[in-house]
Amino acid sequence: MLIVQKYGGTSMGDCERIQNVANRVAQAKKQNHSLVVVVSAMSGKTDELIGYTKSFGTLPNTREVDMVLSSGERITSALLAIALEAMGFKAISLSGRMAGILTDSVHTKARIQSIDTQYIKSLLEQDYIVVVAGFQGVDQKGAVTTLGRGGSDLSAVAIAGALQADLCEIYTDVDGVYTTDPRIEKNAKKIQKISYDEMLELASMGAKVLLNRSVELAKKWNIPLVTRSSFSLEEGTIILNEEDIMEQAIVSGIALDKNQARVSMVDVVDRPGIAAEIFGELAQANINIDMIVQTIGRDGKTDLDFTIPQSEVEEAKMALKRFENEVGLIEFDCEIAKVSIVGVGMKSHSGVASRAFKTLANENINIMMISTSEIKVSMIIDIKYAELAVRALHRAYELDK
Amino acid sequence: MLIVQKYGGTSMGDCERIQNVANRVAQAKKQNHSLVVVVSAMSGKTDELIGYTKSFGTLPNTREVDMVLSSGERITSALLAIALEAMGFKAISLSGRMAGILTDSVHTKARIQSIDTQYIKSLLEQDYIVVVAGFQGVDQKGAVTTLGRGGSDLSAVAIAGALQADLCEIYTDVDGVYTTDPRIEKNAKKIQKISYDEMLELASMGAKVLLNRSVELAKKWNIPLVTRSSFSLEEGTIILNEEDIMEQAIVSGIALDKNQARVSMVDVVDRPGIAAEIFGELAQANINIDMIVQTIGRDGKTDLDFTIPQSEVEEAKMALKRFENEVGLIEFDCEIAKVSIVGVGMKSHSGVASRAFKTLANENINIMMISTSEIKVSMIIDIKYAELAVRALHRAYELDK
Repeated sequence: MLIVQKYGGTSMGDCERIQNVANRVAQAKKQNHSLVVVVSAMSGKTDELIGYTKSFGTLPNTREVDMVLSSGERITSALLAIALEAMGFKAISLSGRMAGILTDSVHTKARIQSIDTQYIKSLLEQDYIVVVAGFQGVDQKGAVTTLGRGGSDLSAVAIAGALQADLCEIYTDVDGVYTTDPRIEKNAKKIQKISYDEMLELASMGAKVLLNRSVELAKKWNIPLVTRSSFSLEEGTIILNEEDIMEQAIVSGIALDKNQARVSMVDVVDRPGIAAEIFGELAQANINIDMIVQTIGRDGKTDLDFTIPQSEVEEAKMALKRFENEVGLIEFDCEIAKVSIVGVGMKSHSGVASRAFKTLANENINIMMISTSEIKVSMIIDIKYAELAVRALHRAYELDK
Repeated sequence: MLIVQKYGGTSMGDCERIQNVANRVAQAKKQNHSLVVVVSAMSGKTDELIGYTKSFGTLPNTREVDMVLSSGERITSALLAIALEAMGFKAISLSGRMAGILTDSVHTKARIQSIDTQYIKSLLEQDYIVVVAGFQGVDQKGAVTTLGRGGSDLSAVAIAGALQADLCEIYTDVDGVYTTDPRIEKNAKKIQKISYDEMLELASMGAKVLLNRSVELAKKWNIPLVTRSSFSLEEGTIILNEEDIMEQAIVSGIALDKNQARVSMVDVVDRPGIAAEIFGELAQANINIDMIVQTIGRDGKTDLDFTIPQSEVEEAKMALKRFENEVGLIEFDCEIAKVSIVGVGMKSHSGVASRAFKTLANENINIMMISTSEIKVSMIIDIKYAELAVRALHRAYELDK
């Protein structure tokens, strides 16, 4: 098999841990797999480097910031190659440039445009273990770029896609995706198999194992993604196409997001196009709208409720200023939580949503907003009931069994 | 003027010091000079990185070591560019690759083969301050290489040569070249001007300001080289062509080298070609011979004295084994010091050497070996008299005046 493995910053934290990673890579190599290994910088290093770049007052030039940041992964990739060579394997490290990763020129959050796999392929043919510095590429002018948060995962998935790898394994310090956050519900179970779409819903709801960009890319290329721990031998969670999961759970997991704020616009003048104008204004201010509920108008007025990230409340206040005369009242509420139940099985089972509503009602939890899609039901509730709701729903769908 | 400045690891030691360097660069830029600035890694960083590469047992793969080591200068070059940008200047950092520095493939001690200055020139024309990561280049296969000890100086001088710069300034934590080591003779004076050849003799004798490779390169390209401190505003020492120094001192400085060992081969069978065989064997073992004295043969026997670096004594013992039957006795003596007086003025003045011999005789110091060239006289003496000899000679040639 052709496998792309990715090891995160905690796994590459010091030379002893890098040796541990080398041992794992060696194990896979001994099973005759072809291996590309993508690595992050040592944990803490990138933050240290970011600290340096902020020492000189004003906003640092992002081209230069990328030159600084990209060095962390160059170091760890070469160290892993050294460790593998010392164990008798043929190994070689490649920077993003050498790995053929071409990006746009948006420094510090560049997007991968294409990957020229010719060099990697020729090295694999020569039986090399190819170690690639994650998180980085070069733009068309040859300047080094970095891919932003979770960038090394993206590097790994993109390389896996470009090489049409059989598997992409993401090693971190957590051993997979759970039915809910084990810190909230100690009976949370590790999920063995989950579909890309479910994972996307879980991740965007606050499950922090994988960033959405990586899952989307894996889905696009149809690369099975495994997330597991580099510190244990336990099997992780495999994320793959819905069709490739035989036994589909009705509900796979419960997600919790406490970083949303609810915006309530009461008594909005109900003229044609007003909603489009409001959301157009917010879009222009780069504010991400999540759930939207509009009540039926009465007396030429309507109510509009929606949620935005808490961090964007101030921008939203600014953007909504020009509608003051057409709205009775605008309220911002950060004391809310979004609880979601996610599962592809919902498509073919009825009564899934109603069970959720009943469960929360039994706990006397008021539901402020509801939104549903084919594979999830999200509910906005008072933040003080967040953990209680998660535990009750986890039990209601028998996820602890 | 087109000036290449180079700042060493102590000058780039932390973000505060990098800001200090930025201020100096800014000063030169405000005088309307075109500037290329070559930087070292933060002092200590390269050693830290070397430490990492040695964590995995056996001799690390040198290609990978270079990938690790080269990152230190990438970071400092980008940080300096950030600092300059924050001060309102146009600045850009370049890795060795982007600066067009092509080397051979001898990793960790590569030699510069050529510099493609096209990109640097176009940036200078656009009024950029160009900051180049020192110590590194790429080989023909595109792999990153490093230039070994003193590599950033070499980068600076080579770039100055390729650009036909008017001046190459080497900033370190010492403020120039002295008539002798000020730790030995407190009346040592800073030299204002000195020729390349004198500097080469002083450097190879143990004056550690500049490595010979850099001085040789500057001489070859005829680039005036200034060595000065980045921590003071004092003028440094300028190193240039002999012809460009109007007032030539007879003796410029006294050098001391305590790292030599003396090899005495007594009663060597005096057959034709024996010396060539002995030195051929030593050359093959990569042992650097410095001074050689052969006494006139008697009874078909001759004595052969020479000096080698102390660090190569064991290798020399091995190499000389096969001559055991043709030599009465081989002795190795590490308790010696080489004291040298250096000055281009010697060429046109007589009695310079004899004054040295007389001075040492007055101090009851026995001279074991003497060798002379056009611009220097070197003497091997007992190591315990080393400092005394330096001080006496410094006074004898009135270098304290």
